[in-house]
Amino acid sequence: MKLCLAKKILKNHLVSGDFISGSEIGIKIDQTLTQDSTGTMAYLQFEAMGIDRVKTKKSVAYIDHNTLQTGPENADDHAYIRTIAKKHGIFFSKPGNGICHQVHLERWAVPGQTLLGSDSHTPTCGGIGMLAIGAGGLDVAVAMGGGPYYITMPKIINVKLTGSLNPCVSAKDIILEILKRLSVKGGVGKILEYTGDGVKSLSVPERATIANMGAELGATTSIFPSDEQTYKFLKAQGREKDFIELKADDDAEYDEEIVVDLLSLEPLAACPHSPDNIKKVSELKSIKVDQIAIGSCTNSSYTDIMKAVEILKGKTVAENVSLVISPGSRQVLNMISQNGGLSVLISAGARILECACGPCIGMGQSPSTDAVSLRTFNRNFEGRSGTSSAKVYIVSPEVAAASAITGYITDPRNLDIENNIKIEMPDKFIINDNMIIPPSENPDEIEIQRGPNIKPFPKALPLSDNVYGKVLIKLSDNITTDHIMPSNAKLLPYRSNIPYLSEYCLTPCDKSFPEKAKKYNGGFIIAGENYGQGSSREHAALVPLYLGIKAVLAKSFARIHMANLINNGILPLIFDNPSDYDDIDELDDLSIESSISQVKNKTVIIKNKTKNTEYKMLLNITDRQIEMLIHGGLLNYTKQNSRL
Amino acid sequence: MKLCLAKKILKNHLVSGDFISGSEIGIKIDQTLTQDSTGTMAYLQFEAMGIDRVKTKKSVAYIDHNTLQTGPENADDHAYIRTIAKKHGIFFSKPGNGICHQVHLERWAVPGQTLLGSDSHTPTCGGIGMLAIGAGGLDVAVAMGGGPYYITMPKIINVKLTGSLNPCVSAKDIILEILKRLSVKGGVGKILEYTGDGVKSLSVPERATIANMGAELGATTSIFPSDEQTYKFLKAQGREKDFIELKADDDAEYDEEIVVDLLSLEPLAACPHSPDNIKKVSELKSIKVDQIAIGSCTNSSYTDIMKAVEILKGKTVAENVSLVISPGSRQVLNMISQNGGLSVLISAGARILECACGPCIGMGQSPSTDAVSLRTFNRNFEGRSGTSSAKVYIVSPEVAAASAITGYITDPRNLDIENNIKIEMPDKFIINDNMIIPPSENPDEIEIQRGPNIKPFPKALPLSDNVYGKVLIKLSDNITTDHIMPSNAKLLPYRSNIPYLSEYCLTPCDKSFPEKAKKYNGGFIIAGENYGQGSSREHAALVPLYLGIKAVLAKSFARIHMANLINNGILPLIFDNPSDYDDIDELDDLSIESSISQVKNKTVIIKNKTKNTEYKMLLNITDRQIEMLIHGGLLNYTKQNSRL
Repeated sequence: MKLCLAKKILKNHLVSGDFISGSEIGIKIDQTLTQDSTGTMAYLQFEAMGIDRVKTKKSVAYIDHNTLQTGPENADDHAYIRTIAKKHGIFFSKPGNGICHQVHLERWAVPGQTLLGSDSHTPTCGGIGMLAIGAGGLDVAVAMGGGPYYITMPKIINVKLTGSLNPCVSAKDIILEILKRLSVKGGVGKILEYTGDGVKSLSVPERATIANMGAELGATTSIFPSDEQTYKFLKAQGREKDFIELKADDDAEYDEEIVVDLLSLEPLAACPHSPDNIKKVSELKSIKVDQIAIGSCTNSSYTDIMKAVEILKGKTVAENVSLVISPGSRQVLNMISQNGGLSVLISAGARILECACGPCIGMGQSPSTDAVSLRTFNRNFEGRSGTSSAKVYIVSPEVAAASAITGYITDPRNLDIENNIKIEMPDKFIINDNMIIPPSENPDEIEIQRGPNIKPFPKALPLSDNVYGKVLIKLSDNITTDHIMPSNAKLLPYRSNIPYLSEYCLTPCDKSFPEKAKKYNGGFIIAGENYGQGSSREHAALVPLYLGIKAVLAKSFARIHMANLINNGILPLIFDNPSDYDDIDELDDLSIESSISQVKNKTVIIKNKTKNTEYKMLLNITDRQIEMLIHGGLLNYTKQNSRL
Repeated sequence: MKLCLAKKILKNHLVSGDFISGSEIGIKIDQTLTQDSTGTMAYLQFEAMGIDRVKTKKSVAYIDHNTLQTGPENADDHAYIRTIAKKHGIFFSKPGNGICHQVHLERWAVPGQTLLGSDSHTPTCGGIGMLAIGAGGLDVAVAMGGGPYYITMPKIINVKLTGSLNPCVSAKDIILEILKRLSVKGGVGKILEYTGDGVKSLSVPERATIANMGAELGATTSIFPSDEQTYKFLKAQGREKDFIELKADDDAEYDEEIVVDLLSLEPLAACPHSPDNIKKVSELKSIKVDQIAIGSCTNSSYTDIMKAVEILKGKTVAENVSLVISPGSRQVLNMISQNGGLSVLISAGARILECACGPCIGMGQSPSTDAVSLRTFNRNFEGRSGTSSAKVYIVSPEVAAASAITGYITDPRNLDIENNIKIEMPDKFIINDNMIIPPSENPDEIEIQRGPNIKPFPKALPLSDNVYGKVLIKLSDNITTDHIMPSNAKLLPYRSNIPYLSEYCLTPCDKSFPEKAKKYNGGFIIAGENYGQGSSREHAALVPLYLGIKAVLAKSFARIHMANLINNGILPLIFDNPSDYDDIDELDDLSIESSISQVKNKTVIIKNKTKNTEYKMLLNITDRQIEMLIHGGLLNYTKQNSRL
């Protein structure tokens, strides 16, 4: 059978299941990465598994999210992760070394291997021919322990790139074009595999930009072939030994195909407030800009920043504009420092921030009220910048830099730019890994540093045969994980402190929810359609678990959140008859009798003792997930699983 | 009469009063500076004065404190200050251009002129022979309007420096030695004037380090002569036209004299938790370090950072240490970027932060719980770092950089350093003022941008003839301005929002105070000795004014806070008989009859209607201050003052 590249890698790593779209497969994970905002929890979970040393080929712990440190919490988390990494065989990338995806691409990513990361933009390393998937911290903990990662077999989409890009049009415009065509839901349950002649002209960092924003399509991952460009990049990183050639078989079969003619593209922008709200930059030219931010895991490579350098050379940032630049890694910062590029940016009036995620995750640089902010980032959700009234546009570095000069959204093709601002990849990057601390040879000597903000995470118990409790809240449709577990610059430092976060659980819907959950010793959540949409954050399940939530009864669930509920032993029950939703009121007493046998049958009868009615609920999950619910979540299930 | 340098400059600017220690003098102000955390309020006050254009020779508005921007508040304040500056004749230094004192020294400070700044470290420019004084925002607003600045005539101390520094001993060690001798109260009511042969060997940035930390002595200001070193610095800044030679007359008289032999000094450290808790670095060598921070208005000049570069060249920061470096200005950053110094720091593993105050004011980089943090800053008060349990040591850049390599507090003389790390001042600094926005030529066209966080400030009313109200709180001795108006990374962004801040007024003493003040429509505060000690923040008077506080009855007041109360029309009354304090209880009803005539007599009888007793209270203030209280504070007084 002719195989596409994604299936070749999946096949090489297959532990269980078959290549049937929609059925579950288990794959072996070669590498893992974590960042700090999800990492503390992942390592607490790893500790709970009782495994001495990671069983992956390479596991790396990055510090890139919580680097502002407006209180001791961040530094405490850094110290915890540093010591746990050293003890358990994990490499530790110090704060200041850069954004996980950028550094991983530079220093560790290997074509043909699998990577599981506790960050939704993990697919970035698909740019180098790696099968790289974002997952919850618990999944990554299991993978570090050597356990397989389970996914529903995705459809494989052939994204055929033809031709090559015009000057001032960039990789960012390719992925914005795809977002325009497919929408933010267009990649759900799919892997985007890039093929065609157009691929050849794209460098690895350009491919990484495209793979990175596959996350905005909702895709499982995106992948590029490993070819001469890949070799060139690895060689420049001193890692030519990691190169293997990889591509789809000729005439490989795909589930779908889309074609993008690169020559036809022009500079695009994702307009407020969605990455798929795409317009041509040339249509936006009268819009005055207050802030411009260049950086993030999407567009902070050496070539990205050097494009801004070329455009800003000898120019001055417009008076009313604050231009902030956060290089993606220490390597990038060092390259532009040594070649004079940084000085160009400083001279133009840019503010140089630390190599970290920074403003992309709302950690600093919130724009002013009602401001227009142009960002080379990947998400422009309302309020994500930390300013609820801000209007954020997602653009390429070329558009960002051009607009910084004029103070208006500017098509860089309209500027008098001397050359094509085609930045060549260097033959040799500056290689210096002295901010990456290798694991200890003497792990017994390492003492874990556990600051007061690091609290034990809640552990699910095996399913009780008699589940009962009160309805604590009744929610409408489309509740997001931001409603369930709000995250902002003030709460992000508390990702390792579930008791503290629990004080904010579902408070955007009902300020008294945490208090009620405590008063009644947990209970049930009732929801409408699409419960748990949005960010994949695991804390939206961990915090309800801490508050004693036993089940969520909803008309439908968002996929990842449902998986997170199951991983944490909370029943995700779907109304067989959606009108039953109307029958339930807050504080009704519900119960499930003989839960274990009912769950095994994937059909559960809920008795409403207050109303004296009952509802038929469905469990649309796999047999493996049923086992997880019965054992009390993924961690308990994994402990008993012989594969570890 | 033989005059010292300070008196020469005072004489040249004298508007009222005589040179009698302890009596009030008024001086004309040539230049003003503001930073953003005090600036918004100063400009709101300036607006309230109804003056179109500043009457100073030069007024500059800097953005350096609130640059993290974890919400829209900071950027809103920046936009307000930018537009108000442009409209009213003030130069605006954009965020990222650097710390006010460093930039002002580089670009604007002029020997022989007077500078009033709304920041306690304004005396930094004393390093260039300027008479530079820190004051409240309202004082600076009045100075911008052309009004005199009033101070009690200070004593002048001759600080005679002899000899020259040994290698690895630096300007920081000179001021730490003086702090050791004089203590943090040793400079109160004094100007430190530096003389002697030892001065000649010190460059302007070194002198600025010493003048800067005169603030930690409580001194009114510190001043150095303007000599060859001054000329060299000004020439390298392209400002030789601003040079004039200035020094004390031979045999000038001083009130006191101290002698510091530079040759006898060795590396020193201010140990937790006070800048005068001085020990030799060699005595601290077994202490393990978690964080090291180089920067702040004290030690972030080109030569300071280059010392760190020389020491860190080819080295790696110790594994457990987070080394953060915030260059003092864009000029410094650009210099080290262009000469390769920055690359050395990056290669060693330093985290490069924006050019701003940053960690020095607790805006980011809080160390981990119980951490040891070495900082080249000026203050190590408990909790100021954002981590209440952290142990902060104040050291020179040499000690900081040496310790970064070893991970322990390290005397740099013990390191194998190839040369003397004597960094020469460059003959020419990189001059680029394109982040300084000049005022508009067409001020009428400028619209003030007023974000929702910028609230009108409370305006005092002329003294009512019948003052009455309830006792809202009864406090003990030594209440600080941190108790009255807490300030931390979470509250600092609200410095232009008095109503928001008022929710936190005196809450460290009584959580219900703001509520009570609102319920009873203001009233009286009762306090013990030394009320209002600590930071000079004006908000500790503005917020009580907003809450309707009419008078504070105390056993004694801290000097600056008493002035702030008067500036805001709140009566600072001192118990003639301290035991009357014991008679008063919370919620007692107090009144002052015929207030105006009583205040004029500087003696006020308070009637306690609840207890049916009365207390004699004193007003230990000048006639001018009496007038201010009667008119309702400095602003109202100034408006009616013909000198504006």
